[in-house]
Amino acid sequence: MITVPTTFRPPPSPLQPPGLPLAPCRSFSNNKIQVELDESSGVAMMKFKSPPVNSLSLEFLTEFSISLEKLENNRACRGVILTSAVPKIFSSGLDITEMCGKSMEHYTEFWRAVQEMWLRLYGSNMVTVAAVNGSSPAGGCLMALSCDYRIMAENPKFSIGLNEAQLGIVAPFWFKDTFVNVVGHRVAERSLQLGSLHPAPEAHKLGLVDELVPEEKLMEKAAAVMAQWLALPDHARQLTKTMMRKAVLDRLVAHREEDIKNFISFVSKESIQKSLRMYMEMLKKRKS
Amino acid sequence: MITVPTTFRPPPSPLQPPGLPLAPCRSFSNNKIQVELDESSGVAMMKFKSPPVNSLSLEFLTEFSISLEKLENNRACRGVILTSAVPKIFSSGLDITEMCGKSMEHYTEFWRAVQEMWLRLYGSNMVTVAAVNGSSPAGGCLMALSCDYRIMAENPKFSIGLNEAQLGIVAPFWFKDTFVNVVGHRVAERSLQLGSLHPAPEAHKLGLVDELVPEEKLMEKAAAVMAQWLALPDHARQLTKTMMRKAVLDRLVAHREEDIKNFISFVSKESIQKSLRMYMEMLKKRKS
Amino acid sequence: MITVPTTFRPPPSPLQPPGLPLAPCRSFSNNKIQVELDESSGVAMMKFKSPPVNSLSLEFLTEFSISLEKLENNRACRGVILTSAVPKIFSSGLDITEMCGKSMEHYTEFWRAVQEMWLRLYGSNMVTVAAVNGSSPAGGCLMALSCDYRIMAENPKFSIGLNEAQLGIVAPFWFKDTFVNVVGHRVAERSLQLGSLHPAPEAHKLGLVDELVPEEKLMEKAAAVMAQWLALPDHARQLTKTMMRKAVLDRLVAHREEDIKNFISFVSKESIQKSLRMYMEMLKKRKS
Repeated sequence: MITVPTTFRPPPSPLQPPGLPLAPCRSFSNNKIQVELDESSGVAMMKFKSPPVNSLSLEFLTEFSISLEKLENNRACRGVILTSAVPKIFSSGLDITEMCGKSMEHYTEFWRAVQEMWLRLYGSNMVTVAAVNGSSPAGGCLMALSCDYRIMAENPKFSIGLNEAQLGIVAPFWFKDTFVNVVGHRVAERSLQLGSLHPAPEAHKLGLVDELVPEEKLMEKAAAVMAQWLALPDHARQLTKTMMRKAVLDRLVAHREEDIKNFISFVSKESIQKSLRMYMEMLKKRKS
Repeated sequence: MITVPTTFRPPPSPLQPPGLPLAPCRSFSNNKIQVELDESSGVAMMKFKSPPVNSLSLEFLTEFSISLEKLENNRACRGVILTSAVPKIFSSGLDITEMCGKSMEHYTEFWRAVQEMWLRLYGSNMVTVAAVNGSSPAGGCLMALSCDYRIMAENPKFSIGLNEAQLGIVAPFWFKDTFVNVVGHRVAERSLQLGSLHPAPEAHKLGLVDELVPEEKLMEKAAAVMAQWLALPDHARQLTKTMMRKAVLDRLVAHREEDIKNFISFVSKESIQKSLRMYMEMLKKRKS
Repeated sequence: MITVPTTFRPPPSPLQPPGLPLAPCRSFSNNKIQVELDESSGVAMMKFKSPPVNSLSLEFLTEFSISLEKLENNRACRGVILTSAVPKIFSSGLDITEMCGKSMEHYTEFWRAVQEMWLRLYGSNMVTVAAVNGSSPAGGCLMALSCDYRIMAENPKFSIGLNEAQLGIVAPFWFKDTFVNVVGHRVAERSLQLGSLHPAPEAHKLGLVDELVPEEKLMEKAAAVMAQWLALPDHARQLTKTMMRKAVLDRLVAHREEDIKNFISFVSKESIQKSLRMYMEMLKKRKS
């Protein structure tokens, strides 16, 4: 007769030999994202360093997807922590300059890069933890939502949310699906319609982030959470993750070209172009 | 490089010119619902005044759908607040006399009117706020659930819920879908099976209503919430709402005739007729 | 004009005549489960008595399904309470010896019995209450999740959860569907990936169990909850339950053979066999 004791923990993985000296880190830095892989723990850190606000330009997104793919294909890497090297901001979301006064070809390429980022991150086989150390609106929020776990700095000045509606635009259906999976239908419906940016404590209460910690302890906590997730055997965890996320991932895969067409037709409207230009103008004035 | 500031608020809509004198209200009152539109704010108030309990008769439902359609087609109207002019009751739900001892034709017409009310309200392009100032069982609860936001008077004597099971009847699948979207699967499953009527504090805890306020502040709060929702650009908000609710709306549209047939076959059963007659008898005795 | 009073309670069912002497209990005991039906209340008790840990062997599962079917077909029985006669454990889940070193035929028969247990329990027309008086990992947790209501002893040493991932295996999709229906997507995703066993207070906070009570009051509370559910007319409650659960039940019915094939192909892998053998070895050492 067999019992499953409640305290069972699997043996440590061969990638985490206890008591061994730390293996040297492999790091590769590109223009906009710094990646450091600690082979002793199997954990990579991706630090967004694209000041002033880590906006998701075509270049940033491309670099992100390539970096993530490299880590995904590296058997020494089992988990990734996403965070920002820019003070007070995690990522400001999609770069509006990429959507303003550009060609159809450019819009297509840009939107495909946004889709690619999400497909790779939401579908990653690695453990993904977001260490949200600053505000994270729109596309920045999507990146956090796409991780397995979200820890946020306990600072009420930092906010997070899918605030597209405030700019007069609509979050794509796969942003919405990802959001509903995290906070449920009622909260998602209200938050998306209001384009709410939730201060950290409110975001925690809504379940949009899983945990709040003092800013100075954020990275330490992210490492501890990652270690907890990596204590599980990879294969079963990965299959479980796929089972949970496949329906939502498949929906974009099945409608990818249609989603690009929708984006282009939307962003090409004169009214939208005008509203985006006004918005950029307002931001410039604010800065000066 | 573009930032999305967390305090961005869109410019006030032309429908809400600050400092202008209030435009005169347009009001139209029919038999059972009083409608007042304040063109300065773009907000209409629909007050149910069908004593003793605002039950949803064929006449009430028809008037409701026509009034809502008028507002929907009026470009000066952007939001609607639903409330009751009858003390202690928001709406008692479907009028049982419409289901008792009537012809097939009558049942068909009645049920189509119930569907119509929900399709128009749940799918409304306007911002819809329920100011629940009394008890709200069954169909009354459905009306509240179909709004964008629910505020309830903080009175534990007022209760709300889909209590159909207590009467020996089953809430239709689209009542259930609307309920699940608001409170999630587990709560919906239990509450529907028990036919629970939740006192206001419990309803708030379950998420069935979004906010409780003292009764005397209910209308003031409803207006404030409405102003917050109307601060968003209409178009993006409407598209977002459609994205969130379309699947559930489409399901009834696709099965509308089948749903009518189900209702008729159910309500025509002698056992159901008998149980409804007994129920009405009990209510009459209570009153006297 | 008709009102639905908030205090309406249906008349007591003829199966619960107040003031009548208790009818004699019918009980039938097999090897592994003791069943007692109190015909006066219409409530059956199923007590798992398969020491040391009530693991779900082929024999246990077969006995469970047969017993449940008997009750289902007995018009005197309207509700079932599941509990354990073994101290400290509700059920330890699937019996690993059934998955180790056996023939394809055996694996097929075993998995079909697991499916059968769930299809009958999750789809039961009776009111089902789990009185969880001990730890309940994996398949034991599934049994509790498949009931209408879960009450757990308020003992932080008792834990509950779908911890398959900790053993390097993946919970089947219908375990997952049942779990998501109870705790929602975010909690399910994290808990399944981590293979979490939640101590009773945490399980309550997550909604995995509906209520905690001191261990000595567990059965009394289960009886009270059952009486509350049985106060509802059976027919409407049953149709409501079917409406809520049908989609998830149908999914397994439609993919039953495929699900068996998946299980066999998984469990036949040498790596899985090895890991299960190691696990059993570890448990044996622990005991001695």
